[in-house]
Amino acid sequence: MTSDAPKPIVPVILSGGSGTRLWPLSRRARPKQLLELFEGGSMLAQTAARVDDAALFAPPLVVAGAEQEGAVAAVLPGARLILEPQGRNTAPAIALAALAAARDDVLLVLPSDHLIRDAEGFRDAVRRALPFAQAGWIVTFGMKAERAETGYGYIERGEALGEGVFAATRFVEKPDAATAEIYVAGGAHDWNGGLFLMRAGTYLDALAAHAPEIFAAVSEGRFEEAPALSIDYAVMEKADKVAVVPVAVGWSDIGSFEALHLACDPDADGNAVAGASLALDAKGCLIRSEGPLVVAIGVEDLVIVATDDAVLVVPRAQSQRVKDAVEALKAEGEERWI
Amino acid sequence: MTSDAPKPIVPVILSGGSGTRLWPLSRRARPKQLLELFEGGSMLAQTAARVDDAALFAPPLVVAGAEQEGAVAAVLPGARLILEPQGRNTAPAIALAALAAARDDVLLVLPSDHLIRDAEGFRDAVRRALPFAQAGWIVTFGMKAERAETGYGYIERGEALGEGVFAATRFVEKPDAATAEIYVAGGAHDWNGGLFLMRAGTYLDALAAHAPEIFAAVSEGRFEEAPALSIDYAVMEKADKVAVVPVAVGWSDIGSFEALHLACDPDADGNAVAGASLALDAKGCLIRSEGPLVVAIGVEDLVIVATDDAVLVVPRAQSQRVKDAVEALKAEGEERWI
Repeated sequence: MTSDAPKPIVPVILSGGSGTRLWPLSRRARPKQLLELFEGGSMLAQTAARVDDAALFAPPLVVAGAEQEGAVAAVLPGARLILEPQGRNTAPAIALAALAAARDDVLLVLPSDHLIRDAEGFRDAVRRALPFAQAGWIVTFGMKAERAETGYGYIERGEALGEGVFAATRFVEKPDAATAEIYVAGGAHDWNGGLFLMRAGTYLDALAAHAPEIFAAVSEGRFEEAPALSIDYAVMEKADKVAVVPVAVGWSDIGSFEALHLACDPDADGNAVAGASLALDAKGCLIRSEGPLVVAIGVEDLVIVATDDAVLVVPRAQSQRVKDAVEALKAEGEERWI
Repeated sequence: MTSDAPKPIVPVILSGGSGTRLWPLSRRARPKQLLELFEGGSMLAQTAARVDDAALFAPPLVVAGAEQEGAVAAVLPGARLILEPQGRNTAPAIALAALAAARDDVLLVLPSDHLIRDAEGFRDAVRRALPFAQAGWIVTFGMKAERAETGYGYIERGEALGEGVFAATRFVEKPDAATAEIYVAGGAHDWNGGLFLMRAGTYLDALAAHAPEIFAAVSEGRFEEAPALSIDYAVMEKADKVAVVPVAVGWSDIGSFEALHLACDPDADGNAVAGASLALDAKGCLIRSEGPLVVAIGVEDLVIVATDDAVLVVPRAQSQRVKDAVEALKAEGEERWI
């Protein structure tokens, strides 16, 4: 490498998370990013594969929960692993990675449990964003808002800064349904995919300015004392030079069985089926088995998921409530199923 | 026993059946009557217990499928077992028992897979019926019709023959819904519970008269060639001296998950739950697990049944369709689940 070669981007893969939203597939010891929900390996492996391009990227830094060390190392033997002693949300986790990097390293922050179908399209967007990150912007990637989803954050696009790059004028956490409808109809809002490109120094400076307690705690080795805030809340909603690169790359956060159903390309009856199963007159169902034969007859819009030790049945539209069930199991001390 | 003591009634317990209607609980090798669906042992054991009264009954004759020999002997070690080389429905099965008995033995034919909550009330009805059976009548027991069920046969009551004993004027196989409504509203029809009291000779004579092919085949040792007809069709609808003793003894044939749900005394939310489960805002559901934890959230009027190797999800009102699923599995050669 000559001194003129651009410094490769450092991917920062965030592999935290307790994995309650896809229970019983996901468990404490087997969070969502380690599941093989789609062909092509786990979402963690697919995330790493997405940035496996030596012309553009350095080997990834993976920030993971301490209890996942073995599992992550098994999936990504070449990754540099940064272990969080406990989960403190994304702002402190990214700070750990930024402190481990050089200040002028450009970091690409990637959640490990999202799906991006068009990896090449995504890398194109990263290339488009790179000069802005190098110039001190925090660049986000705006996922085309395909429906009035209330479970996602939204980014408002402002003036164009360059070809396909816009100033981000506002971050909105999960809006109500009416607001989400207005956003989708208006066309000036994208989903916040939780992907960020920025220099390590840019992030640390912004953190010091807008979330000094997090900056102080993490830089002084008191990670557990850092307020558990998301990067969106701690930094993005407050920082000045924030840009957004709109993309349409087949993104999904697979944050619920409803999202998994959509991401699985349902058949003509609206069913997305995986594993041993028999569906008679079922419509709009997500049916997934890791072992037992699942027979579904005459049911509509249900999630039916079976593992060797647990079965979930919930209407698709209520699939967010799975976490209530996991909380109830925790409250009852039923650790064997969590 | 003096020569004046009445000859005890010979219970004939019919333990055939392929057990597809409660799949995946019931399997070919584990038909419905061998399942522990309720406290107090399997329905076969409970059926035998119902006639375990030496003052009234001799030890039972059990007519079972050859493949059930071991299982039946394990549940009823004292029973005399008659093995059918293959299932040919009830008329030939009862003929086997009648030929094994003396002509003047009074037989009480009992399906092995029905529930009768009030065993003492049932024995009272048998005592009431006994003189008529001894006098050459075929006595049936009419179960109080509690709803316009289309899955059952109905018996029409005629003139009173004695205290609580009536001439049976008509047998109707599964009627349509409108007819069932009329029957229930009219009050002159009972459900046909498949229980019969009659002398062995009475039955054989009626069979010879009304279903001579069955009589000939069974009495000549050509059981497999007997037409596979029910006693209702082969004999009851045609015989002359048929009586009915109406009873209200908490009977159910548990012929579907819908019937099992009713028989399980659902809680205030309409749920009948057994085994490891967690129901959040579930209503009207039958939830049953033999192993896995079943979590049901926000669902209504569903049957959810889990075993170690299979899961069934079907609306309660469609639970009769389970047999379609079993047929489909057979057609696909999926023997391991049948």
